[in-house]
Amino acid sequence: MSYHKPEAKTIQDLKDIAHRLRIHSITSTQASKSGHPTSCASIAEIMSVLFFNTLRLNLKFPRDPSSDRFILSKGHSAPILYAAWAEAGLFPIEDLQNLRKIDSDLEGHPTPRLNFIDVGTGSLGQGVAVAAGMAYVGKNYDKADYRTYVVVGDGESAEGSIWESLHFAGHYKLDNLCVIFDVNRLGQSEPTSLQHHMEIYRKRLDAFGFHALVVDGHDVEELVKALHEASITKNKPTAIIAKTYKGKYFPNIEDLENWHGKPLGDKANEVIKHLEGLIVGATDAPANPPKSPAKLKQAPVVDITNVKLSSPPNYKLGEQVATRLAYGTALAKLAQNNDRVIALDGDTKNSTFSDKLKKIFPERYIECFIAEQNLAGVAIGAACRDRTIAFVSTFATFFTRAFDQIRMGAISQTNVNFVGSHCGVSIGEDGPSQMGLEDIAMFRAIPGSTVFYPSDAVSCERAVELAANTKGVCFIRTSRPNTAVIYGNDDVLAIGKGKVVKQSPKDQVLLIGAGITLYECLNAAAELEKSGVHARVIDPFTIKPLDAELIIENGRAVGGRVVVVEDHYQQGGLGEAVLSVLAEQRDFVVKHLYVPTVPRSGPPTVLIDMFGISARHVIKAVADVLQL
Amino acid sequence: MSYHKPEAKTIQDLKDIAHRLRIHSITSTQASKSGHPTSCASIAEIMSVLFFNTLRLNLKFPRDPSSDRFILSKGHSAPILYAAWAEAGLFPIEDLQNLRKIDSDLEGHPTPRLNFIDVGTGSLGQGVAVAAGMAYVGKNYDKADYRTYVVVGDGESAEGSIWESLHFAGHYKLDNLCVIFDVNRLGQSEPTSLQHHMEIYRKRLDAFGFHALVVDGHDVEELVKALHEASITKNKPTAIIAKTYKGKYFPNIEDLENWHGKPLGDKANEVIKHLEGLIVGATDAPANPPKSPAKLKQAPVVDITNVKLSSPPNYKLGEQVATRLAYGTALAKLAQNNDRVIALDGDTKNSTFSDKLKKIFPERYIECFIAEQNLAGVAIGAACRDRTIAFVSTFATFFTRAFDQIRMGAISQTNVNFVGSHCGVSIGEDGPSQMGLEDIAMFRAIPGSTVFYPSDAVSCERAVELAANTKGVCFIRTSRPNTAVIYGNDDVLAIGKGKVVKQSPKDQVLLIGAGITLYECLNAAAELEKSGVHARVIDPFTIKPLDAELIIENGRAVGGRVVVVEDHYQQGGLGEAVLSVLAEQRDFVVKHLYVPTVPRSGPPTVLIDMFGISARHVIKAVADVLQL
Repeated sequence: MSYHKPEAKTIQDLKDIAHRLRIHSITSTQASKSGHPTSCASIAEIMSVLFFNTLRLNLKFPRDPSSDRFILSKGHSAPILYAAWAEAGLFPIEDLQNLRKIDSDLEGHPTPRLNFIDVGTGSLGQGVAVAAGMAYVGKNYDKADYRTYVVVGDGESAEGSIWESLHFAGHYKLDNLCVIFDVNRLGQSEPTSLQHHMEIYRKRLDAFGFHALVVDGHDVEELVKALHEASITKNKPTAIIAKTYKGKYFPNIEDLENWHGKPLGDKANEVIKHLEGLIVGATDAPANPPKSPAKLKQAPVVDITNVKLSSPPNYKLGEQVATRLAYGTALAKLAQNNDRVIALDGDTKNSTFSDKLKKIFPERYIECFIAEQNLAGVAIGAACRDRTIAFVSTFATFFTRAFDQIRMGAISQTNVNFVGSHCGVSIGEDGPSQMGLEDIAMFRAIPGSTVFYPSDAVSCERAVELAANTKGVCFIRTSRPNTAVIYGNDDVLAIGKGKVVKQSPKDQVLLIGAGITLYECLNAAAELEKSGVHARVIDPFTIKPLDAELIIENGRAVGGRVVVVEDHYQQGGLGEAVLSVLAEQRDFVVKHLYVPTVPRSGPPTVLIDMFGISARHVIKAVADVLQL
Repeated sequence: MSYHKPEAKTIQDLKDIAHRLRIHSITSTQASKSGHPTSCASIAEIMSVLFFNTLRLNLKFPRDPSSDRFILSKGHSAPILYAAWAEAGLFPIEDLQNLRKIDSDLEGHPTPRLNFIDVGTGSLGQGVAVAAGMAYVGKNYDKADYRTYVVVGDGESAEGSIWESLHFAGHYKLDNLCVIFDVNRLGQSEPTSLQHHMEIYRKRLDAFGFHALVVDGHDVEELVKALHEASITKNKPTAIIAKTYKGKYFPNIEDLENWHGKPLGDKANEVIKHLEGLIVGATDAPANPPKSPAKLKQAPVVDITNVKLSSPPNYKLGEQVATRLAYGTALAKLAQNNDRVIALDGDTKNSTFSDKLKKIFPERYIECFIAEQNLAGVAIGAACRDRTIAFVSTFATFFTRAFDQIRMGAISQTNVNFVGSHCGVSIGEDGPSQMGLEDIAMFRAIPGSTVFYPSDAVSCERAVELAANTKGVCFIRTSRPNTAVIYGNDDVLAIGKGKVVKQSPKDQVLLIGAGITLYECLNAAAELEKSGVHARVIDPFTIKPLDAELIIENGRAVGGRVVVVEDHYQQGGLGEAVLSVLAEQRDFVVKHLYVPTVPRSGPPTVLIDMFGISARHVIKAVADVLQL
């Protein structure tokens, strides 16, 4: 595919469209009285060339799996993205005036409430990971022609997450990915640290495995050529490093500080007039529509619904199996039944047991190395447009590294499944840096999330199966130590449905535990029984949603006396989840046992006792609660 | 300071010590039956040269502010760090056999429970930020001779946080910082992505502003020379990129996979015998002690205790002031009274108002650009050894980016103060990506943390003053909109003490709100009063610790009927904090109003109402709770 210089008319049209996009960015932010017109202006030519010369887009079905992907990582430039789609013909240009209004989905930052947006952006530094995930799927699974483009701000390129993703893209030779850096020199509150040192950007990107091109970001011809070069570059992703100016072509605003995130106010009319003067064609001539993806090699039709384990759990009651191991087993079984089940891990696959999938389907395992932000972002990208069912694993506590990505995942309406092993003090000697003790709090606070905390191997396998079929962010918390199988292989587990695992008509107190603490509850109940105290025990299975009905009903049956015990800090975990479902109930008292402080290294059983969550402490809590 | 090649005896001693450190790493992990001897072996010569040739250490006072700093970013190599200090004479070598035991502070990963450790490591990719923070303080505030060294694993160099920190160090020309990369080629579960491609590391580090040297990491002479070169390199930090082998000098283990994180078991004796054979001197000859910092330019004595606002708050009752603005005012006042008060921000200083400090003391403001992981890490480093009182600000939700760093901050016993602005839906049009709605959940789950949520300018100024004097992680949540001043300038605010802001003897329900929702509660109470319903209103001031006594007492006084309303998601916030303090109380019912789902763009007041936390909803909740 040799390069043909575009005709003069094409070049002029692209220039004109860039100015029209600038004008829309001004008028829409004038209407909303907030927004970032100057950050739009720096990418006006980039957007014009992308949308009206490069991208293959399906206006009838913007999420066509075979069309090119575009991610605006610098989400605050949303107005120009909306303007580009409007100029492309997806919706009326006058709708742009609804920017940021309460009843418009043209929000301050893009979200998939809009049918042409794949992921929410606006928290910076996340777009490249998502784009890399899409590109990985396009190259390795879909094996289709579509390409992935992402526009990154220079300010956000200070985010380490960007460099994780660039390294990932370089390592996996994602030549269907093109990252465009908008180097407009100015951050929010001062110039960026690298300002217009284009050569430093070039050196860094070259060293990170990219074909790196420095261009004048306001020269549409250079951009057309660079994007063509990107499309024919093999075995390497391309970085187009565009030297631009914030507020370009805005007189007395261009390249000046203190214009970040501000509408132009009383300068708007003058600037618009100036821009109109720069337009050579008719100011209201309709743009040619974007190219179509119809002639590209199409992405295959895939079905990621209704995925089942290839065989039911196969354990003996009482068998000692770690839930983290059951996760690996179930993951492999799911993968056997659907070739779009994939696993991603951050170099912990032999601890989380995601390597069980790699062993049977090596091509469906994506090693993301020790870079959890990119790990989460790649998974979110891979799951876009329902191309894959992605399971992401690492130690539970290392997901704290990707909290912002997971948070944005919820805004992005992602369906990614996160599996965190090595929760709590029960991991033992490795010590507090490796212990997940805030992971439930984190994942519960993700809107629309489902939080599984399986206690045995059977329920863990079912959790994996359920997660694969559940919308939104799912989190499965797995444990390092072996625990006894307590459920039959055919027992039915369901989201929001707990199980009463021990009961008698004489019960005086309700114990709630999960993972290793469920067994501490059972041991405590057995011990208490010897002294004539009868305790009912519930396994909640999912912490969110929590089975309110079961807890209220059984709690009431034992006189409103509840003990909750968890291998997690006090805040935001199982205990507070139980308190939330009991909030509007009178006559309940809850005794909550949790890890009260930073733990330390030591044998698991010693730590469980030292930090107050062993059977001995449950027994003491029961004695206390019987007095309340 | 010209380079003198060390004498042959010195070189041989350093080689011998390296082997002794290897032997200790083997025997201690044999004793603990867990740990990472092979990851120790790759840095044995590095540790030997650092501790017995380079570092200036004070064995009588390991946290001497004038001594060199050493951070082991790859914390899993803890055994060799402990061995180096033991060989240096800090504690008996036989203590190394207590590694990972429950009653020993020689934990699986280093923590400041040990007097020679500044920060906890073990969650990877965090050491460079901490070291950069220390180096920044050494160069710019202490203006002393001490240098900062950090050893980074090649696996962890995939973490983007590392690249944020490298960029920071390069940008600020921290020539008193030396980063040593242990490129041992093998990760936990497979080879690293760059294996032994030393030239790629060199190019990257060069491009990130480092004087980058590739050395044979097992050649003590090369290491001595490179560390000397680092010490005389001006205006640039130095990176020593050491080509090493995991399990070096362990026969049949060296450079092989599947030996990560495993004691040598039945191979231990054979390996130890081999290592003993490599030692030329006496195997038990005491090492020469490390160099002393006594002759260095000493760090000044500083006092960061008992810091006060330079003048009390100065507002009129009813005046409309945003708490984020009051934060900036108070920060500047604190800084006027203590020259070790510093502020760090991630290019949001004109939104968080940390720029108020920069305006009066530009040198005490550290711009960290858009890189929140490094931002948190640099602050933790800057606060080490009580050198500064660090205030870190950005939008509340962007601290999710640094959750892992903050979590490790608690393990590190840090005293850093985090200030998050732009909380909740009340920020308005920017939309959900910019709204802090999980920040309280996150900071509450940090052990030992204090969480302030001031509602007016007076209490916000006092929160800043209190935070400066409070140990542990502090978080201050500030709001974007203006709120009325409700406290007198001399009112006393205290941690764990809430305020009853409205009450009468006829009260039937207790309302609890904070920030903008406190005012919704007050408006609701005023409205309810018209229809004869009397509501008491509490401002909790601190969410952690929460004033349990005040809530229980006042809640009981109104018949156990409580309504909590917060601009935060349901989980882990003010509502669940209230439920936790009421857990063991019978006869309470709590109605909890919170943001139930991902919000959207729109005017603040519309969003507050749309997402169910306005006065109108409080009134409805009161009606409901009066029925319970």
